[in-house]
Amino acid sequence: MKTEDKPVILVTNDDGYRAKGIQALIEVVKPFGKVVVVAPSEGHSGMSHAITVKVPLRIEKVEEKEGFEFYICSGTPVDCVKIAMNQLLKEKPSLLVSGINHGANSSSSIVYSGTMAAAMEGCLYEVPSIGFSLLDFSKEADFSSCINPARKIVGNVLKNGLLPDTCLNVNIPNVPENEMKGVKVCRQNKGVWREEFDKRTDPNNREYFWLTGEFYNLEPEADDTDEWALHHKYISIVPVQTDLTSYASLEQIKKWNF
Amino acid sequence: MKTEDKPVILVTNDDGYRAKGIQALIEVVKPFGKVVVVAPSEGHSGMSHAITVKVPLRIEKVEEKEGFEFYICSGTPVDCVKIAMNQLLKEKPSLLVSGINHGANSSSSIVYSGTMAAAMEGCLYEVPSIGFSLLDFSKEADFSSCINPARKIVGNVLKNGLLPDTCLNVNIPNVPENEMKGVKVCRQNKGVWREEFDKRTDPNNREYFWLTGEFYNLEPEADDTDEWALHHKYISIVPVQTDLTSYASLEQIKKWNF
Repeated sequence: MKTEDKPVILVTNDDGYRAKGIQALIEVVKPFGKVVVVAPSEGHSGMSHAITVKVPLRIEKVEEKEGFEFYICSGTPVDCVKIAMNQLLKEKPSLLVSGINHGANSSSSIVYSGTMAAAMEGCLYEVPSIGFSLLDFSKEADFSSCINPARKIVGNVLKNGLLPDTCLNVNIPNVPENEMKGVKVCRQNKGVWREEFDKRTDPNNREYFWLTGEFYNLEPEADDTDEWALHHKYISIVPVQTDLTSYASLEQIKKWNF
Repeated sequence: MKTEDKPVILVTNDDGYRAKGIQALIEVVKPFGKVVVVAPSEGHSGMSHAITVKVPLRIEKVEEKEGFEFYICSGTPVDCVKIAMNQLLKEKPSLLVSGINHGANSSSSIVYSGTMAAAMEGCLYEVPSIGFSLLDFSKEADFSSCINPARKIVGNVLKNGLLPDTCLNVNIPNVPENEMKGVKVCRQNKGVWREEFDKRTDPNNREYFWLTGEFYNLEPEADDTDEWALHHKYISIVPVQTDLTSYASLEQIKKWNF
C-alpha cells in the first residue's frame, strides 16, 4: 500500500510532546497507517476540555518523513485536535488516539482528563477516538507493556468501528504484560476525589493551597466497573458518550411546576 | 427562620467575580437561604473542567454580612467548588448554582463550559447543582429577565431534588420575560463547532491562530432538544449526568477479539 493510500492516524496527548507516553503511542499506531502527531508544547494534566480563547495559538512542524509528521501546538489537548482537524490535515483521519497518559483516567477522573477530552473532541469530529492511560504517574513510567494490548484495541476499532458519538477510555494496569489478566469492557466506576487541599503559609505569612487529594471508590464491590477491572489487573475499556443527557431524569423533571 | 437554620447555597461562575451574571444569580438565590459566593478572580470561559495543579491557589474573603459571604479564588470554576467544599463551608450546601453565564452552553458546548463543569463538580460532591446561561455573550448583557424563571427552577430543585449523579443545564433565551414561551425539559442537541480558526501573521511574519468558529446544529428539526427550545424562545433544561458510559456500546465491544 502506498503511503497516500494508508489511513491517517492523528496522535495527541496531554502530557506534552516530550512525554514518554506519546512516544509509546506512536509505536502502537505506526503499523496501521500514516501518523500525524499534534502534541501540546507543555504538559496539560487536569486541563479537561479547556480551549484557548484569550491568547492566540502557534503551531510548529518539528519532523516530517515518509508516513510521519510531528507538530507542536502551544495550546491545550483539545486545541491540538481542533487545529489538526481545521488546519493541518488534508483529510479526516481514520482514527484519533490520545495518550498514553502518565497516570489513571478511570472512574470520575475522566471529567478532569485532558487525554480523554482530546478523545471526546475527536468524537465530536466524528473520528473514531481512543484515550489510553497507564496507571503510573511518574515521568519515567515504563510503557513497554502497553504496546501489544493497545495495538489489539486499535486494530479492533479500525476493523469494527464505534457507535456514533462514542469514544473509548482505555486504562492499563501498571504490571508486566504477562501479569495482565486480559481486557474488560466496563462501565465508569462511581468514585470521587476528597480532602483535596494542602494548606501552607508563604514567607509573607499569607495562606495558599495546593490541590491534592485522595480518590474514594464508592462501589468497590461492583465487578462491572473500570476500577474493579484495574484493581484485578485487567485492562479496562469504558465506552464514553458525548451526549450527557440524563434520560432517566426527563420524565421526573417534566412533572415539576414551573 | 434564623440565619444558621437556613439552607446554605453555594454560588460560583466562570466569567469571574465582577461579571453581571453572578450578581443576577445572587439575586436569584437570596430568598432561599444563606448565600456563599466563591468566584474566580478572572474570567475562565472555555476552561471546562480544568483544575489548577501547577500553581497554588489563593482565596480572599471580600465581603461578609448576615446571611452572605463572598470569596474570590485565583483558580478555575472547578477549583472554586473544590475549595468551597473543602476549606470554606462548614456544612454541605443544600444547593450549588453556577452562572449566570454570559452566552449559551447548550448542545455540545456543555463540554467546553466552565459554568457547567462547576455544576458537575457540585454533583460529584452530591450537592444538587444547576448551571444557568443567558444567550447573550456581551459583557453588558441584561439579566433582569432571568431572575423569576431561574427562581422557579431553583425552588423546584430545592423542593423535589434531583436524581443521584445528575445536575441541570439551564439556558435562557435572550428575550424579555413576557416573550418567553415557558420551560422545556430537553435532551442535549447534537451539534458541533466547525471552521474554528482565524489565521493571521504577526509583525515578525510568523503565523498565529485565534480560536473562533461557527456552531452547526446537526438536527435542527428535532423538537425535543435544547437548541430547538431556545430557538423557539423556551427556557431549556437538560438534566446532565456525570456517568459518561455509553451503555449501548457495552455489548458490541464485548464481542471484539482481544
